[in-house]
Amino acid sequence: MLGSTHGTFTTDLRARVVACGEQTGPTVHGIAASEGDLDVSGRPLFAPVPDLDRFFRPESVAVVGASDAEGRPNTGITRQLIAWAERVGARLHPVHPSRTAVFGRPCVPSVADLPEPVDLAVLLVGDPLPVIEELGQAKVKFAVAFASGFAETGEEGADAQRRLAAAVERSGVRMLGPNTNLNAFERFRDDLEGPAIALITQSGHQGRPVFTMQELGVRLSHWAPTGNEADLETADFISYFAGRPEVGAIACYVEGLKDGRSFLLSADRAARAGVPVVAVKVGRTEAGARTAASHTGKLTGADQVVDAAMRQYGVIRVDGLDELQDTAALLARARRPRADGVVVYSISGGTGAHFSDLATAAGLRLPPLSGAKQAELHQWIPEYLNVANPVDNGGHPVGDWRGRKIIDAILADPQVGVLICPITGPFPPMSDRLAQDLVDAAEETDKLVCVVWGSPVGTEEAYRTTLLGSSRVATFRTFGNCITAVKAYLDHHRFTTGYRSAFDEAPRTLSPSFRKAQALLRPGHRLSEHAAKQLLRAYGIRVPREQLVTSAAAAVRAAGLVGYPVVMKASAPQLAHKTELGLVKIGLTSASQVRDAYRELTDIARYENIDLDGILVCQMVERGVEMVVGVTQDALFGPTVTVGLGGVLVEVLQDAAVRVPPFGEEQARSMLGELRGRALLDGVRGGPPVDVDALVEVVLRIQRMALELGGDLSELDINPLMVLPRGQGAVALDALAVCR
Amino acid sequence: MLGSTHGTFTTDLRARVVACGEQTGPTVHGIAASEGDLDVSGRPLFAPVPDLDRFFRPESVAVVGASDAEGRPNTGITRQLIAWAERVGARLHPVHPSRTAVFGRPCVPSVADLPEPVDLAVLLVGDPLPVIEELGQAKVKFAVAFASGFAETGEEGADAQRRLAAAVERSGVRMLGPNTNLNAFERFRDDLEGPAIALITQSGHQGRPVFTMQELGVRLSHWAPTGNEADLETADFISYFAGRPEVGAIACYVEGLKDGRSFLLSADRAARAGVPVVAVKVGRTEAGARTAASHTGKLTGADQVVDAAMRQYGVIRVDGLDELQDTAALLARARRPRADGVVVYSISGGTGAHFSDLATAAGLRLPPLSGAKQAELHQWIPEYLNVANPVDNGGHPVGDWRGRKIIDAILADPQVGVLICPITGPFPPMSDRLAQDLVDAAEETDKLVCVVWGSPVGTEEAYRTTLLGSSRVATFRTFGNCITAVKAYLDHHRFTTGYRSAFDEAPRTLSPSFRKAQALLRPGHRLSEHAAKQLLRAYGIRVPREQLVTSAAAAVRAAGLVGYPVVMKASAPQLAHKTELGLVKIGLTSASQVRDAYRELTDIARYENIDLDGILVCQMVERGVEMVVGVTQDALFGPTVTVGLGGVLVEVLQDAAVRVPPFGEEQARSMLGELRGRALLDGVRGGPPVDVDALVEVVLRIQRMALELGGDLSELDINPLMVLPRGQGAVALDALAVCR
Repeated sequence: MLGSTHGTFTTDLRARVVACGEQTGPTVHGIAASEGDLDVSGRPLFAPVPDLDRFFRPESVAVVGASDAEGRPNTGITRQLIAWAERVGARLHPVHPSRTAVFGRPCVPSVADLPEPVDLAVLLVGDPLPVIEELGQAKVKFAVAFASGFAETGEEGADAQRRLAAAVERSGVRMLGPNTNLNAFERFRDDLEGPAIALITQSGHQGRPVFTMQELGVRLSHWAPTGNEADLETADFISYFAGRPEVGAIACYVEGLKDGRSFLLSADRAARAGVPVVAVKVGRTEAGARTAASHTGKLTGADQVVDAAMRQYGVIRVDGLDELQDTAALLARARRPRADGVVVYSISGGTGAHFSDLATAAGLRLPPLSGAKQAELHQWIPEYLNVANPVDNGGHPVGDWRGRKIIDAILADPQVGVLICPITGPFPPMSDRLAQDLVDAAEETDKLVCVVWGSPVGTEEAYRTTLLGSSRVATFRTFGNCITAVKAYLDHHRFTTGYRSAFDEAPRTLSPSFRKAQALLRPGHRLSEHAAKQLLRAYGIRVPREQLVTSAAAAVRAAGLVGYPVVMKASAPQLAHKTELGLVKIGLTSASQVRDAYRELTDIARYENIDLDGILVCQMVERGVEMVVGVTQDALFGPTVTVGLGGVLVEVLQDAAVRVPPFGEEQARSMLGELRGRALLDGVRGGPPVDVDALVEVVLRIQRMALELGGDLSELDINPLMVLPRGQGAVALDALAVCR
Repeated sequence: MLGSTHGTFTTDLRARVVACGEQTGPTVHGIAASEGDLDVSGRPLFAPVPDLDRFFRPESVAVVGASDAEGRPNTGITRQLIAWAERVGARLHPVHPSRTAVFGRPCVPSVADLPEPVDLAVLLVGDPLPVIEELGQAKVKFAVAFASGFAETGEEGADAQRRLAAAVERSGVRMLGPNTNLNAFERFRDDLEGPAIALITQSGHQGRPVFTMQELGVRLSHWAPTGNEADLETADFISYFAGRPEVGAIACYVEGLKDGRSFLLSADRAARAGVPVVAVKVGRTEAGARTAASHTGKLTGADQVVDAAMRQYGVIRVDGLDELQDTAALLARARRPRADGVVVYSISGGTGAHFSDLATAAGLRLPPLSGAKQAELHQWIPEYLNVANPVDNGGHPVGDWRGRKIIDAILADPQVGVLICPITGPFPPMSDRLAQDLVDAAEETDKLVCVVWGSPVGTEEAYRTTLLGSSRVATFRTFGNCITAVKAYLDHHRFTTGYRSAFDEAPRTLSPSFRKAQALLRPGHRLSEHAAKQLLRAYGIRVPREQLVTSAAAAVRAAGLVGYPVVMKASAPQLAHKTELGLVKIGLTSASQVRDAYRELTDIARYENIDLDGILVCQMVERGVEMVVGVTQDALFGPTVTVGLGGVLVEVLQDAAVRVPPFGEEQARSMLGELRGRALLDGVRGGPPVDVDALVEVVLRIQRMALELGGDLSELDINPLMVLPRGQGAVALDALAVCR
């Protein structure tokens, strides 16, 4: 498991003011940012793409610690590297302090003695640290460190890794590892054509199934086994692969991300390039690293944040390695869809019904074929069979010339983008001809043709030769994986069509709100409700008219100013659960009620030993729908923004959606669509719909605040945000803020 | 698709009173019911098990419509049947009106001319109807009807099928089909040992993958292709297979169930016998057949009812045919678990972490190994590797004698019931030996050993020969299917251990409540709130003290009797949305408020043109948690009981659980556990926990009512049921009832 170092970002506010002040002019679509550009949170808007051409295809390689002594582990590795170097035409130089030759090749005692500047040094030494400086001096471009015993072993190893990383940074060398292996230098098949998968894995063994897919005819162009990512990380390889013309899709196996921002910037680069990224990210059961004071902080765990971040930037997350293989293979090879309609075609009504049921449940669109198209199909398919979609041919037509006619007729329908033919049982007289017809038809169409070969055996000729022999037909072994992959395929193209990067629109300069808000922060403290609401006001979020008072007489004057009826609440910096303690009085309609309430609240506070900073006298707000909106710091992604159902239900139903900044209005709006209780916003039992626009605006303002205050604002929580009927806005009735 | 006929049950209440009165004495665990026993709803408590021995292993067979003419479809079928009869040693008699011999065998012109009474007649004729009577007269036990064109083609075909079914019933013959095929008479491998899968499918093609698993060494004992189920249905085969000693698991592919009750009775029989039933049931996206007036009626769709019914009786529902194969194969062959702890063992830390993450998310329990056990493992596994669970061996120990030691040590741990070894990449020096060690260890343990062979290729020797050659190791191809199957395996044994059938405890005699309730029903009408509440009272469910009044003066008197404060509501049979119309007044504390409310309510009713039967003056109930409880009629399963979160949220969140009667207290309690908002019942924000026992009691009383009133009560809805703090009960504040 990778010992991930967590992303941090500068909180030197002055530095940011200056940096941001220098940025001018609008950004345009495309990669407008350049090296050094920062957003208002001080985090980069641009990730440089390392030029890894010479890493994957070096002209010269040094093997430091090379050996040909029988029984030494390095001997086997050296032998493999020599074979690989011969295959790719690289010059290989063994390096060993006490040998003059290794496998008959001249061996030099140290890196300094190399006969030429090398592109890549493979370090087979137990401790790579002492070698790094030499590599820098010898102008070596890349290093691969095999040694283990670093962050994967605990704190001591993590320290050693930090020292290694620092040395690497000083040296100017880019390093893969430590704790990596030979995967990048495996024997790739070079006889396969078409767009390839590029593979990135943090564990070599976990990449093996995708690598093995070459035996099924799926082309693989690269394999980056990133190991502990002391220097080069998953994001670097995503960015690099996204620019390679031979790469059709990037498949990743990720145990821990090194840095959230660099990952998102690389995903953004892939999205702009239209290159799909499919990822397994371990951590479904990860206990959220959060111990939060706020409600929203408890609403979303670390894995949900990863999920949201990936979705925001179009990364397709899957759970199993089999899904990773099948989805990446489809996305690498399939052309852009011409339509999003899916037709299911089978030799059995049962198969068609079953597949269609699962496909529809997963969100695929199976449009009914037109009457004209159905009539056309009935030329070849008996009248009593259903051909509306799914198309059931009853079996027999696939055995003769009619089979191909049917397939072509379906593919010719303009609403059809994908034809899926599940063949659950091999029955050679029918299934062999059907497979061949599908392969032939796929050669002549630009639409996607998928086959599910459902036999659990998988040694059948029609499967191994006919179907796997075609790079135009996507062949699956299960309904589930076919549906997952086709869904990802259509989603990916929908996502990248007209993709607008949120990084292009990320704020680069501080808003006027910032200085007001900054003045309210009290480092290391939790703000009182009143102060937290001032913070909201600074960012233009509406709060009730209210005054903080310290006497009954002042309370009565305040009530007159904010207007009856009023709400009165105890106010103190560390005060939670006001309602349960009886520290909130609502619906007060007269001066005498206000006076009584003042006395009662201060009595309770005294009894409970609460050090009040006063009593809040607040305008009472008419009823709407209670929501929560909050900010929490994620260890990997920095500040995140959460919105959820409010009131007592926030604790019970955990109905919330989260986003990682930067995100735009569309994403803010889509958060609401993720809520199970979304219908509450449309009005229930004849109630009016609420002001969704105002709610979205609050979410965006909170994002702005979260970005500008950065890590200085540990947590923020509006609970509840009362969202009023449409056109009437939203009011933050209570707020909590914790400063770092 | 099967044209399913929906289950119905008698509503002749007098008949039931008599029938039930005859039942005496307690039932005991085991199948206490016998043929003809009915529960209080008039539905059977016992399903006879057809003796299908002579169907699957007939001694003599007639082939009606036999042919040896070149090019006729019947010729191929006749040839296959002859070969099959020779294989199984059955005497085969061709029947054809105009042939004297078929394939050299003497052919008789009609069934009446058969030389002996036959066990089985295979009907290859276009219309089987005319033959059925002859079969009956000839004392033929079983028939198989291949003809299609029945319920699968529409209404006309469904009529023909009904006529066929009636003829079959009169004849005394048991029939499979129509619209079925030869699957029951396929060539089964007889060289495989151990418990077998018995397969039931409504579509032949969909059963092919499970059949094909014989090529992977999984034994199959029977295949019942039920087709349109005009007579013999899925449930008959489940009941029969559950009693066969060679059957280890029953795998079903179901498109539409013929009758809910018979299905549940067969599942119950399998549960008593400890034989697992694994089923694909198409219909995930089925639009619920319900158009309900009540809230609870809209809460659960037809598929959720199927889901619940299957879970109640231990049927394991899966979505894909691959899951059906893998789960049925595991459940057929694995012995009863010794413990429910799962250990994940792998040659890669990444693999172990990934698998464990998914397994834990799916609900498997991965207990950490004890310190002593870890120390034992570290004899063979380097100290820096994690062996707590998952156990990471780092690769090398599997290549030598240590590999087997590690496996045995893990299996010897008493908390371990299942060892899972995911091998994602084939690397023969390690994976071949590892596979062999696992196979050897599995021979010597009674614990479950699972392997995931993750290579997408599947032609490797270690997979095809070593792993598939073992009937003791369960081999999977994906993490997902392994986890699904192991979860089902542990769940199945948990379920059947000490299984108590709800049918044994189903009420057989009408309760005293029944006559009171019956008198309140108004066939074809919707009851007023007041009448619906009387229905609840008849079954001992608490309602507020209330009176129906028709004058302001009577309202004031009623208020005095029920006690201030009171609630007043308009009452009319067809009245919904009272609150939205302003027809509910709460918190009335004086005679003058009651008088004003009376006037206002009647004014609104007049304005809205509502024909009131009066005004309800009700006791006001203190606050608790609002729930809904209801009864809806399911087309397949009859009355179902739903419980959900109440108030405005019932419409928004659809948070509800459903059960099919009969069910006991444990199931009623488990419904609450399925609610996302379950925590509301435990008290929130310092509120007290509510009276869950009272809520469960209401659910059980409602079930009783639903059973006793049967189809006469189309819908019932308590909304809200106010569940008070613990010890204080639950009160039905509003109710709706629709009579058939």
